[in-house]
Amino acid sequence: MADWKNLDQLDSYKALVEDPTRVDLRSALAGEPGGQRVRDYSVPMAGGLSFNYAARQVDDGILQKLDALAKESQLAEKFAELYNGAMVNTGEKRLVLHHLTRGQLGDPVIAEGVDKRAFYVEQQERIAAFAKRVHAGEVTNAAGEPFTTVVQIGIGGSDLGPRAVYLALENWARAEGELKMEARFISNVDPDDAVGVLSTIDVAHSLFILVSKSGTTLETLTNEAFVKDALVKAGLNPADHMVAVTSQTSPLAQNSGYLAAFFMDDHIGGRYSSTSAVGGAVLSLAFGPEVFAAFLDGAAAMDKLSATAEPLENPAMLDALIGVYERNILGYECTAVLPYSQALSRFPAHLQQADMESNGKSVNRFGEPVDYVTGPVLFGEPGTNGQHSFYQLLHQGKNIVPLQFVGFRQNQSGTDVLIEGSSSQQKLGANVAAQIVAFACGKDDDDPNKRFDGGRPSSIIIGERLTPESLGALLSHFENKIMFQGFLWNLNSFDQEGVQLGKVLAKRVLAHNTDGALAVYSELLGI
Amino acid sequence: MADWKNLDQLDSYKALVEDPTRVDLRSALAGEPGGQRVRDYSVPMAGGLSFNYAARQVDDGILQKLDALAKESQLAEKFAELYNGAMVNTGEKRLVLHHLTRGQLGDPVIAEGVDKRAFYVEQQERIAAFAKRVHAGEVTNAAGEPFTTVVQIGIGGSDLGPRAVYLALENWARAEGELKMEARFISNVDPDDAVGVLSTIDVAHSLFILVSKSGTTLETLTNEAFVKDALVKAGLNPADHMVAVTSQTSPLAQNSGYLAAFFMDDHIGGRYSSTSAVGGAVLSLAFGPEVFAAFLDGAAAMDKLSATAEPLENPAMLDALIGVYERNILGYECTAVLPYSQALSRFPAHLQQADMESNGKSVNRFGEPVDYVTGPVLFGEPGTNGQHSFYQLLHQGKNIVPLQFVGFRQNQSGTDVLIEGSSSQQKLGANVAAQIVAFACGKDDDDPNKRFDGGRPSSIIIGERLTPESLGALLSHFENKIMFQGFLWNLNSFDQEGVQLGKVLAKRVLAHNTDGALAVYSELLGI
Repeated sequence: MADWKNLDQLDSYKALVEDPTRVDLRSALAGEPGGQRVRDYSVPMAGGLSFNYAARQVDDGILQKLDALAKESQLAEKFAELYNGAMVNTGEKRLVLHHLTRGQLGDPVIAEGVDKRAFYVEQQERIAAFAKRVHAGEVTNAAGEPFTTVVQIGIGGSDLGPRAVYLALENWARAEGELKMEARFISNVDPDDAVGVLSTIDVAHSLFILVSKSGTTLETLTNEAFVKDALVKAGLNPADHMVAVTSQTSPLAQNSGYLAAFFMDDHIGGRYSSTSAVGGAVLSLAFGPEVFAAFLDGAAAMDKLSATAEPLENPAMLDALIGVYERNILGYECTAVLPYSQALSRFPAHLQQADMESNGKSVNRFGEPVDYVTGPVLFGEPGTNGQHSFYQLLHQGKNIVPLQFVGFRQNQSGTDVLIEGSSSQQKLGANVAAQIVAFACGKDDDDPNKRFDGGRPSSIIIGERLTPESLGALLSHFENKIMFQGFLWNLNSFDQEGVQLGKVLAKRVLAHNTDGALAVYSELLGI
Repeated sequence: MADWKNLDQLDSYKALVEDPTRVDLRSALAGEPGGQRVRDYSVPMAGGLSFNYAARQVDDGILQKLDALAKESQLAEKFAELYNGAMVNTGEKRLVLHHLTRGQLGDPVIAEGVDKRAFYVEQQERIAAFAKRVHAGEVTNAAGEPFTTVVQIGIGGSDLGPRAVYLALENWARAEGELKMEARFISNVDPDDAVGVLSTIDVAHSLFILVSKSGTTLETLTNEAFVKDALVKAGLNPADHMVAVTSQTSPLAQNSGYLAAFFMDDHIGGRYSSTSAVGGAVLSLAFGPEVFAAFLDGAAAMDKLSATAEPLENPAMLDALIGVYERNILGYECTAVLPYSQALSRFPAHLQQADMESNGKSVNRFGEPVDYVTGPVLFGEPGTNGQHSFYQLLHQGKNIVPLQFVGFRQNQSGTDVLIEGSSSQQKLGANVAAQIVAFACGKDDDDPNKRFDGGRPSSIIIGERLTPESLGALLSHFENKIMFQGFLWNLNSFDQEGVQLGKVLAKRVLAHNTDGALAVYSELLGI
């Protein structure tokens, strides 16, 4: 059994706190030794990716201390306990099994009397069979016409991850002839969200996936009502157009109002559910089950690499350690994720949820307050767009924000154009290379307004092309990074008690059971 | 002439630094006095909006000191100098005239020998006439068929603001029968951005707006080449499908490759250009010139209010002052913008640019380093989506993030559904009211994991409905807030030298004129 201790109880952490070393990136990356550092500070990932940390604020001495921290914190042992089925989500008394949706890293995990790997595979196979029947025109609308659009109705983890993954692969699928159905997403309880999506699709040829683990999520059921209204108004029977993804015990399971129900369980948190039936249904319908399987394979390969005990061979663990060093020793409060790939436009929003909901906490896994900072604020937009926007603050603002770049050597569509002797893809790559060096090395200038201090750390994940495999590996990298950081901070990264209070108060408002400030706010908002 | 001083030179700022008061929001908002505070701490805005700051961390004493800061910092005088045509953008030696696109607040401003208000109005009238001809079917494609889609090609300020505004009004326009043309946007130099948009539109019925002040923006010209390729491949003449928004001296002006050219000038920065021809062309084509005019009217009314010298009657000034108090006295590094309106889905991304590019700086307007923190990191997503995502950290994380909510009493589409006795719009409003109180007041619990410390400040802008007028007022509020904060920090909020270094280095990469770290990064990225 691993020993779960607070970060500040560890000798290796105290050694880091006492180490006065502060790496000067300007000199670290200068000249030919700087070039050699870029070659050396790189570790292979799955899916053809590599994690390059040459522009992070570490050197061999700091890395050695982080290695000691990894060992003393028993990161590999804790991950092994997790994938072997320990009750790591202590608060909710649940296992943490999203890795099992893509592979078996350790022992069989039995819960609720079933082998959970077999359960997840069974759901994948049921989804695959259903998707194939839809694509083959065996499941159709009442008029016998094929479904052309799939619409996910879900919120939070049932929305952001699957949406980010869909957008990440839409252009790839179009280029490869694998776009079977277009996907759309309805999430917000704001009625204009559903109205907006419904006004731009052909409901008669749309299949709707209702995603709610409990079958009682208010936003989701409300949006389902919108969709059913629209179907009925179009003279259609909702039961011919609806599929559910839910738990086996929910009111949506074995319900004749749905063409089919695919199952998840309590051991996979919403923000980790893209590789479960929550992502599986919409992605298998949009791209075909083979593409979804390739996405899972990429994640499985990266999970396997994440089980390595040596941080210098384990990019997720290394990224986590350096991130904790930046947050707790260097004191940086935010982090930005900046993919140089338009396809990853919503990937930062998904990571924002995955990271901030997992580690934005102030008590440890035993419910005791911790005396150190935990998860950072995470934000991001794709480059080069961001360069013309908030990068100003990142380059010349008063606070330092560590950056995570992502870049690919090839684009997804295979279509490109040569202007001034270079392709757009080359311009994209040139820009991200330039940004890393500009942030790290800066530039002196007689005019202080044009001076760049540099010393702003970043890392980059580089791949050949954004494909289902490399996307799966990318997702797994960040999921496992967040998990390792939760281990380091001694948090339970798998509950989310911070979302509860607002729900309780919102119900009071709707029941008109309020007084004082809440009553006046409600009145001002016309309720 | 106003006296431009650093924040820490002002006696009123020193008084704030020395004031040990820290408002406890839990007690400030408790009971009936809390309800009264919510009624009192509210100031009307234009467009039917109001700014409610009851949950910001201030009291009458702090507000009095902020009032003194506003006066000593001469905020109203500085704004008057700006709108009367002083060279406020000192670094680039330009005026700051975006307010003139929507009204004349002060004296006539003459630059380059012309009355600038008349110039901007002339461009609006030219755009309006052109848009009406397109809508009337007088400007068509070569086959004489009407244009149904308008596609903006631009990046940064030529993209984020117009895109955010378009999305904010799309559902409104659909409900009101004012959606004349659907709009799409191409921005990223990533070739997959253009490929993706082009694969989902009918180019034969699309009108493309190329937006580049200089006519030389690399991303934009590259994407234009993509579009022209697509038009040629479809057997169409690009010149029949292209419009330019540019400066009068650019190569795109008086160019037979464009159906028309509409003009902007150097006195309006990209991030402030939504109300200029940059936003005017795409928005007038999408919604009609009357809708764009209503949007400008809302902004103009809010600008007028922003000229008031009394902070308690000037919401933009008050918001700015409280924001500086939170940033410099309370030490909060980030701020989040959380609109409870799906239509405002990209408004936070636009504000992220407007705020972080304006005030993410470390030298004052004279080029001298400042010894205090300046612009915060700004991020945000619409509620209720965010509640199921990063709000966990906002509620229970180790750092406090001040929040800016936006909410409306009515939705845009007028369509809604009753579930469990309340409409979706009521649920939306109930949630934002609940969140404000949850963040401010928290909740004790025997289980520390379920404990909410509270004390997390927020304000809310409340409106009747998101319309062109109220959206214009909302935009102006934030633009003017950012301007006032720049005055307080003594920054030039209107240049962006921090984006230059990356451009220079990217050109070196493309010219293969690199060594050391930059050469190796370029190699790894396949260039």
